[in-house]
Amino acid sequence: MGAKNVCLMTDKTLSQLPPVRVVMDSLVRNGINFQVYDEVRVEPTDSSFMDAIEFAKKGAFDAYVAVGGGSTMDTCKAANLYASSPNSEFLDYVNAPIGKGKPVLVPLRPLIAVPTTSGTGSETTGVAIFDYEHLKVKTGIASRAIKPTLGLVDPLHTLHMPGQVVANSGFDVLCHALESYTALPYHMRSPCPSNPIMRPAYQGSNPISDIWAVHALRIVAKYLKRAVRNPDDLEARSNMHLASAFAGIGFGNAGVHLCHGMSYPISGLVKTYKAKDYNVDHPLVVKKIPHGLSVVLTSPAVFTFTAQMFPERHLETAEILGADTRTTKRQDAGPVLADTLRKLLFDLNVDNGLAAIGYSKADIPALVKGTLPQERVTKLAPRPQSEEDLSALFEASMKLY
Amino acid sequence: MGAKNVCLMTDKTLSQLPPVRVVMDSLVRNGINFQVYDEVRVEPTDSSFMDAIEFAKKGAFDAYVAVGGGSTMDTCKAANLYASSPNSEFLDYVNAPIGKGKPVLVPLRPLIAVPTTSGTGSETTGVAIFDYEHLKVKTGIASRAIKPTLGLVDPLHTLHMPGQVVANSGFDVLCHALESYTALPYHMRSPCPSNPIMRPAYQGSNPISDIWAVHALRIVAKYLKRAVRNPDDLEARSNMHLASAFAGIGFGNAGVHLCHGMSYPISGLVKTYKAKDYNVDHPLVVKKIPHGLSVVLTSPAVFTFTAQMFPERHLETAEILGADTRTTKRQDAGPVLADTLRKLLFDLNVDNGLAAIGYSKADIPALVKGTLPQERVTKLAPRPQSEEDLSALFEASMKLY
Repeated sequence: MGAKNVCLMTDKTLSQLPPVRVVMDSLVRNGINFQVYDEVRVEPTDSSFMDAIEFAKKGAFDAYVAVGGGSTMDTCKAANLYASSPNSEFLDYVNAPIGKGKPVLVPLRPLIAVPTTSGTGSETTGVAIFDYEHLKVKTGIASRAIKPTLGLVDPLHTLHMPGQVVANSGFDVLCHALESYTALPYHMRSPCPSNPIMRPAYQGSNPISDIWAVHALRIVAKYLKRAVRNPDDLEARSNMHLASAFAGIGFGNAGVHLCHGMSYPISGLVKTYKAKDYNVDHPLVVKKIPHGLSVVLTSPAVFTFTAQMFPERHLETAEILGADTRTTKRQDAGPVLADTLRKLLFDLNVDNGLAAIGYSKADIPALVKGTLPQERVTKLAPRPQSEEDLSALFEASMKLY
Repeated sequence: MGAKNVCLMTDKTLSQLPPVRVVMDSLVRNGINFQVYDEVRVEPTDSSFMDAIEFAKKGAFDAYVAVGGGSTMDTCKAANLYASSPNSEFLDYVNAPIGKGKPVLVPLRPLIAVPTTSGTGSETTGVAIFDYEHLKVKTGIASRAIKPTLGLVDPLHTLHMPGQVVANSGFDVLCHALESYTALPYHMRSPCPSNPIMRPAYQGSNPISDIWAVHALRIVAKYLKRAVRNPDDLEARSNMHLASAFAGIGFGNAGVHLCHGMSYPISGLVKTYKAKDYNVDHPLVVKKIPHGLSVVLTSPAVFTFTAQMFPERHLETAEILGADTRTTKRQDAGPVLADTLRKLLFDLNVDNGLAAIGYSKADIPALVKGTLPQERVTKLAPRPQSEEDLSALFEASMKLY
């Protein structure tokens, strides 16, 4: 790439670990100047994005390397974007209606993404997600232009992950696959664009994204438990690392829907939760719940709700996840998939629903209110939802077992 | 793309059919100048390539549209390449050792590929195959640079295909999938390149190409017979059209091996064969056998031979193609897959082996000799082959049932 002045982005914890050291050694050995930005915030916000953007602008870098999970890769995408477009306001490229959703017309610098968790698939997508603190809502930037130039999907980088992190990241993969496979098909979205090229990145399920979703799901079914159980199971962790990238290619070209749409208020509003095994250093973090957990807790309710639209697809995923569906009736597709998911979550010792992470029935109106602005994803659900439907979904997710 | 002067390439037969008319109508309606080249030769040669290249050079086109099967798309790739590199000799970019195998460093014009057969997958690959008449050998040009900018995979374009053409094209898909899935894994090829970026396009099987191969195979298992039987079965023909593209993405990034390597002399040396259902107008064509047929006739022998290297993969493909493999021993993987293939070929009324298309035992030395220069693909077979091995494979392919 001919880079002479590289920005290496990571977080404080990783900056001391082998994945970052390998990159630094390689840059030094090849005589390439670089600066390290290790202030990436887990679950980034507009102000943490802004801090990274300032760093990028000052550094006048000609290439970026992001080493970390989704938070790091997303922060680096934003830094690259705004440093390449220095006269833009922050909200210019943020998704409407919160931001202006302007198309990205400037050329960006090369970005090499090195994922160290197996969940986000951010190395394959043109999406960068953050908390917009002012409105207490998750939103993001979505443009093919911010997709990393190259992803280095190296399973050795996942051996450091504690089991709980593997599980929660794996749930993100699971839901990326399930949601993109059951999303509204691209030809049923409305309004129908005048030309296929005008479809958004989240264009609905399609024959290409289906392949990635189903394949990622097969890997999750075969390897997630093994990867959680044993940090040295290189076969299982390698496969989960690939599954994360594969599911990313799938949902990055199809979209996600209700589990993700509902997860944003779940992680944004939670009051008391200390995630096990996460080493976090900013004060708000005791209030944060891991993204994958916030996504998966509603999955039994969500797929019970959506299955009436595409029961065959729901049954197919239940079968891949281990259910015996030979005699299942189509109208039972939702409950069968939900039971299969509950069993998986129970086996992996997941918190027993939203109640177990600090929510009660009184919080449901706020959770529903926080879901409504997530239209960009929720409208990709195969079945439209009223506020009452959302209420019922949150209520059904309070207790899983 | 801002094109103002487009080259539309097709063959004589298709030039009168709807797929080409649709493109012409669209160009006219949008006020874009274009010229039609309909002299594409089925199973192109160096001189037919050269003719198309001359046309492209004279026309000074700023974009290309290829409407047809692999012959048309490959011819158009070559025309675009040499018109963009007017000072190159024809052999400069042809694969070594026949040509010089130079890397393509010039920028090419956009090429839109519209496949009208469901076999080649050429719309997804950076390969253009032709007969080098002087040496009576198939060779080609292989470079990511000649990969089409865009493929329009429209199943309506396949409804005109006679059943026999669907079958033969489908065999090409079948073998693309089987060969790329059983090809030597990318990390076992030698010599090992100094850097992953130096891997050739035919880099060996890998986790990405595997997904496409297996998925294409599942489609073939489910839809090939239906697509052959009934020209109006839009679901079956749509799926086979996607399978062709999917298998193309797979083998285009992994490679093929013995069935393809051995097919080149089979189609090059055949003396008397008039393909059913093919409308062909050049004098040599009675000597031509459809590419997919020349590929599939050796498949039972080939996979019996290769299965001892990766028996699990061979068994898995047999199962996808309908075999009950629950009690099959690993050492029987080859024969079981071969029997499954024979059954499929018999059901589709395929000629009974090389003998049925005009070969006898006396031709085997020439067939072996014609296979030896196909090292670029044959060395991707999971098991190395001596000349005696190749002889035995041709002999075992004389009669299938």
